[in-house]
Amino acid sequence: MRAVRLHAYDQPLRFDEVPEPTITSPHEVIVRIAGAGVCRTDLHIQQGWFAQLGLVDVPYTLGHENAGWVHEVGAAVANVAVGDAVICHPQLSCGICPACRRGEDMHCAQGLNFTGLTRDGGFAEQLKTTDRAVLRLPPGVDPSAVAPHADAGLTVMHVVRKAVPLLEAGTRVVVVGIGGLGHIAVQCLRVLTSAEIIAVDQDPEALKVATDCGAHHQVPANDQAAQVRDITGGAGAEAVIDFVGEEASIAQALGMVRAGGTLFVVGYGGTLTVPALQLVLTQISVVGSAVGTHDDLRELVALAATGVINVRTHTYPLEAFADALGDLEHGRMHGRGMLVP
Amino acid sequence: MRAVRLHAYDQPLRFDEVPEPTITSPHEVIVRIAGAGVCRTDLHIQQGWFAQLGLVDVPYTLGHENAGWVHEVGAAVANVAVGDAVICHPQLSCGICPACRRGEDMHCAQGLNFTGLTRDGGFAEQLKTTDRAVLRLPPGVDPSAVAPHADAGLTVMHVVRKAVPLLEAGTRVVVVGIGGLGHIAVQCLRVLTSAEIIAVDQDPEALKVATDCGAHHQVPANDQAAQVRDITGGAGAEAVIDFVGEEASIAQALGMVRAGGTLFVVGYGGTLTVPALQLVLTQISVVGSAVGTHDDLRELVALAATGVINVRTHTYPLEAFADALGDLEHGRMHGRGMLVP
Amino acid sequence: MRAVRLHAYDQPLRFDEVPEPTITSPHEVIVRIAGAGVCRTDLHIQQGWFAQLGLVDVPYTLGHENAGWVHEVGAAVANVAVGDAVICHPQLSCGICPACRRGEDMHCAQGLNFTGLTRDGGFAEQLKTTDRAVLRLPPGVDPSAVAPHADAGLTVMHVVRKAVPLLEAGTRVVVVGIGGLGHIAVQCLRVLTSAEIIAVDQDPEALKVATDCGAHHQVPANDQAAQVRDITGGAGAEAVIDFVGEEASIAQALGMVRAGGTLFVVGYGGTLTVPALQLVLTQISVVGSAVGTHDDLRELVALAATGVINVRTHTYPLEAFADALGDLEHGRMHGRGMLVP
Amino acid sequence: MRAVRLHAYDQPLRFDEVPEPTITSPHEVIVRIAGAGVCRTDLHIQQGWFAQLGLVDVPYTLGHENAGWVHEVGAAVANVAVGDAVICHPQLSCGICPACRRGEDMHCAQGLNFTGLTRDGGFAEQLKTTDRAVLRLPPGVDPSAVAPHADAGLTVMHVVRKAVPLLEAGTRVVVVGIGGLGHIAVQCLRVLTSAEIIAVDQDPEALKVATDCGAHHQVPANDQAAQVRDITGGAGAEAVIDFVGEEASIAQALGMVRAGGTLFVVGYGGTLTVPALQLVLTQISVVGSAVGTHDDLRELVALAATGVINVRTHTYPLEAFADALGDLEHGRMHGRGMLVP
Repeated sequence: MRAVRLHAYDQPLRFDEVPEPTITSPHEVIVRIAGAGVCRTDLHIQQGWFAQLGLVDVPYTLGHENAGWVHEVGAAVANVAVGDAVICHPQLSCGICPACRRGEDMHCAQGLNFTGLTRDGGFAEQLKTTDRAVLRLPPGVDPSAVAPHADAGLTVMHVVRKAVPLLEAGTRVVVVGIGGLGHIAVQCLRVLTSAEIIAVDQDPEALKVATDCGAHHQVPANDQAAQVRDITGGAGAEAVIDFVGEEASIAQALGMVRAGGTLFVVGYGGTLTVPALQLVLTQISVVGSAVGTHDDLRELVALAATGVINVRTHTYPLEAFADALGDLEHGRMHGRGMLVP
Repeated sequence: MRAVRLHAYDQPLRFDEVPEPTITSPHEVIVRIAGAGVCRTDLHIQQGWFAQLGLVDVPYTLGHENAGWVHEVGAAVANVAVGDAVICHPQLSCGICPACRRGEDMHCAQGLNFTGLTRDGGFAEQLKTTDRAVLRLPPGVDPSAVAPHADAGLTVMHVVRKAVPLLEAGTRVVVVGIGGLGHIAVQCLRVLTSAEIIAVDQDPEALKVATDCGAHHQVPANDQAAQVRDITGGAGAEAVIDFVGEEASIAQALGMVRAGGTLFVVGYGGTLTVPALQLVLTQISVVGSAVGTHDDLRELVALAATGVINVRTHTYPLEAFADALGDLEHGRMHGRGMLVP
Repeated sequence: MRAVRLHAYDQPLRFDEVPEPTITSPHEVIVRIAGAGVCRTDLHIQQGWFAQLGLVDVPYTLGHENAGWVHEVGAAVANVAVGDAVICHPQLSCGICPACRRGEDMHCAQGLNFTGLTRDGGFAEQLKTTDRAVLRLPPGVDPSAVAPHADAGLTVMHVVRKAVPLLEAGTRVVVVGIGGLGHIAVQCLRVLTSAEIIAVDQDPEALKVATDCGAHHQVPANDQAAQVRDITGGAGAEAVIDFVGEEASIAQALGMVRAGGTLFVVGYGGTLTVPALQLVLTQISVVGSAVGTHDDLRELVALAATGVINVRTHTYPLEAFADALGDLEHGRMHGRGMLVP
Repeated sequence: MRAVRLHAYDQPLRFDEVPEPTITSPHEVIVRIAGAGVCRTDLHIQQGWFAQLGLVDVPYTLGHENAGWVHEVGAAVANVAVGDAVICHPQLSCGICPACRRGEDMHCAQGLNFTGLTRDGGFAEQLKTTDRAVLRLPPGVDPSAVAPHADAGLTVMHVVRKAVPLLEAGTRVVVVGIGGLGHIAVQCLRVLTSAEIIAVDQDPEALKVATDCGAHHQVPANDQAAQVRDITGGAGAEAVIDFVGEEASIAQALGMVRAGGTLFVVGYGGTLTVPALQLVLTQISVVGSAVGTHDDLRELVALAATGVINVRTHTYPLEAFADALGDLEHGRMHGRGMLVP
């Protein structure tokens, strides 16, 4: 089958012909890919940011944001059947360690076992995963329409659910960065909270998307902390979610948080620098958040099935992977890019 | 009456004769001081760290950690009577704003109104406060034995209660800095959780105190993150509470936190510097914590009354205030110093 | 001024001329009534259900669901000023006991001090209350449009907020009884949760109101537990809120709860009878819920101000109080009746 | 091997020779039994209380409270190895349904699959279970010393963990029934809370056990609600846990709950009858609780390993099963009976 693989760090990905995966253990599931989302993390993987983890040998197939149809199942698989439309949680987890029993798949005692990062991913015609890592889609939900929820949406749902208890009616939440994740976040916050939503981005086009998604305020990324302070009567917001994470973005995001509030960090390029005195006097929290749980995925898909949350996708044929990655890298992409084999 | 007052920043405090306070509004309470704890914040106030807040004119009386007996009450005071033994929450709050109604006195909409910081404190024979800010002590509790709970203990209780939900049996918690606050923290953690407690300090004497207070492990402050990693089988601790907050201490404390865990920052001299990628990959939280709520004080006093939590005090006569502050500044004090008028 | 008063239990209320209230203590507030909601509890008070509490002497003025404009304030009142539009929490609380500090006004250590139940209420031109018990309305909110939120809405908000953590996307909630409270509950659930909402009532007219308010399913009150089981694929609902509380209603409501779910009891005419074996095998909870907190009222008013929650009112002149009570008693009222002086 | 089996409801159990279990699927685990606790539920099973569930055909082996050593494992088992000392969670769960992913094994979508109730149990030399249902014991923990934790302790831990958030310092909790479960509950409450513990039992011997386990007050079961009211200054207790569940016991237990408090029902012989008005006016909750989660078992075993929680056992040889059941039925047993093959 065709697959897009990384052969060496800092080198372009290659379009290869590889063998189809086969079932070798009873809980495995092979999924025929309907769509695979393209993520900034794919650029980071290519650039070698995660090489230090030492968890995978090149060459291997990228793509951690996958949905499709079940193609083949192992002998012990009971939750899905051949032909079912499914979305794939990127992390394969054991199901028996304490973290898995609490539903925290990302903290599985067996460590990171992450599709498209530490094992072959979905930039291909087929993907091998496990029964625990697939979720059957509700009737009528097209896998190619929801593939980006497997990572972009999942990461959003995870951080939004952490923020929800802070966001009663009358509170304010800031979403920094209205890209592939941010535009889903605005929708999730609109559905799950009664807070006023303030969207921050440097791109006027992105701010228009935010408005369409339900944001109440739009703030250009220019002295944005001061603007958020103005909108909130000087106090700052109860919650700020930073999907950018570059140096200047984090500093500005920190400056938007009100006393007792929380900064959620999801984007990860820069460094947070904050005097302990500031943390202590204002009693604020800084919370790192990454990919979500299987239950986050379940709730997100349930919401998507009712039509209240939609991901904006741009489709590329699998062989146009270089265009997709290039558009992402150079800011030519609004919403989420997706490869279709 | 006699009072220890700050006349100018970066100058020694002075021992003054001042008028006794008088009741001027119906909810006021005048307390005859039994003891007033001496805190590192008193040194910081003297050094002008809080001068920027612009909330007070010198000269004024320091002392935010007070207990004693009710001496006089305003016409509307119903919760205490003359002669009652009381402990004084340092913050005076309105009782009507949303924060006060949630019990978050420190976030009162009227702002910081803090005994010994923005208004006259308890390094004196008498202190004027309000009915909302005093808590009647249970029978048999001596106010001079519990005065440090008004701030040292209160700050500990606040951060420990935030940590308790993270600390099931089988988890680990690190207490960094076994001084006036840390030695109470070890006791509170011992009473309120089943976690293993790891004490960190550079002073062997302090580590002995930690052992007496119930710590399970003692770690000298020298490459302490590595030592904590060793004790925890490489994983790190579910919660780390840093009462020191100097630059190197925070960096080491951060290095002790396991994936999904939380660093609580209470000490506040240094600056936290952390790459967003580290926050995100490990999904850790950093939580600033200060002082506490009236309900924290109530629970702490209830525990102290049963004898399971004891603060170690060194008593100085009020006029020996300079000795007390000097002993604190130069590390000659174990437990908590207290001035007795 | 004119007032509608109870002179003897089981006797009709009377329309009296009484003196206007006067400020006699510094935290008091006198409100000029814009509207006072009529509640089934007013019928129960008249019938003597609460006489056993022995907390009030007749004659006194009924009406616990009040809003209006501040007419006069005591010397210590700082949160509202003369002319402000306000809504009145029915319970007057001390602000200093542990329950008040947690925001649980209804559990105030001073006991029940409830407008129109243990003290003069708002079926009159003016009402005397306290600063803690009034909430200033946001600009543009007409007090007569929100008066029923002071009790009907407040009771709804309290129970709905308890239910919200149980109601993720994909769950089901049943609202039993679509009257003055139920029609607000459907709206609150629609705004604050993503659950499917099942409305139950014996009156087809009420079920139409439920549909307009956002209910997803309508169930006539006839073997209603079986119908809810059908709608939920046999499992039952995660939460059931019974605003009726008559004998048969409670038994049916209990039969709608899925394993691990919760029955909230708000209506209170009947008796709950349930074998312990059923409670234990299914691990269900039964939660009694009454009037809410000041913070519930604040959140409700914040939502009402944005237009997403509306109470349906039928206005009667104060002197037509007997018509209003009669319409309520004989099921001729949809939405909430309100007396306007 | 030898096994104690039920052949017909309301008939004595029989001592049979049966074949040893064999591994027939990859996740199965065969445990050599060290001890199997005897539970009142075994009497109820024999009496046919659960026959209506229709989930099992007689004859089958009873015993749902088991610990021992791993004897044989299926091909896919990775969490335990032959020879490991283990304790057995009674419920076999799928690990993939939403409830399992939240850790709620008892609500597994595959339904009740309960050792010794719906499938062969541990009143035998060997027991067949699954990898998900066994927990490896910490070094030095003797399986025969902890077998009763598999159900008695697990049920206690589940309900106590629900109660812990209600039980700050200064609160009161009542334990009704100091038998096999109650005496563990007193210990768990002592370790996990700072509440005052009130023990209720009709047997003076049991009250002595409660005292040894750490109860602060002992109340003979005679007008016990009034006695608890007296001890709590008239208010009642924040939490009451009823392990008896007979008609009179539940009514008395309900009368011990303070306004806003919670009654936990674990024993299950009787019927709860309570006017809705009482539930509503006092805003109390009634919570059914049964068995527990794997995580409850993990925390309990972690505590037991440190020596702070001990179950009192009376050992009988397997063939003396009739004596054990008879002693339990006729109240001659203090602590927990255990069969040893």
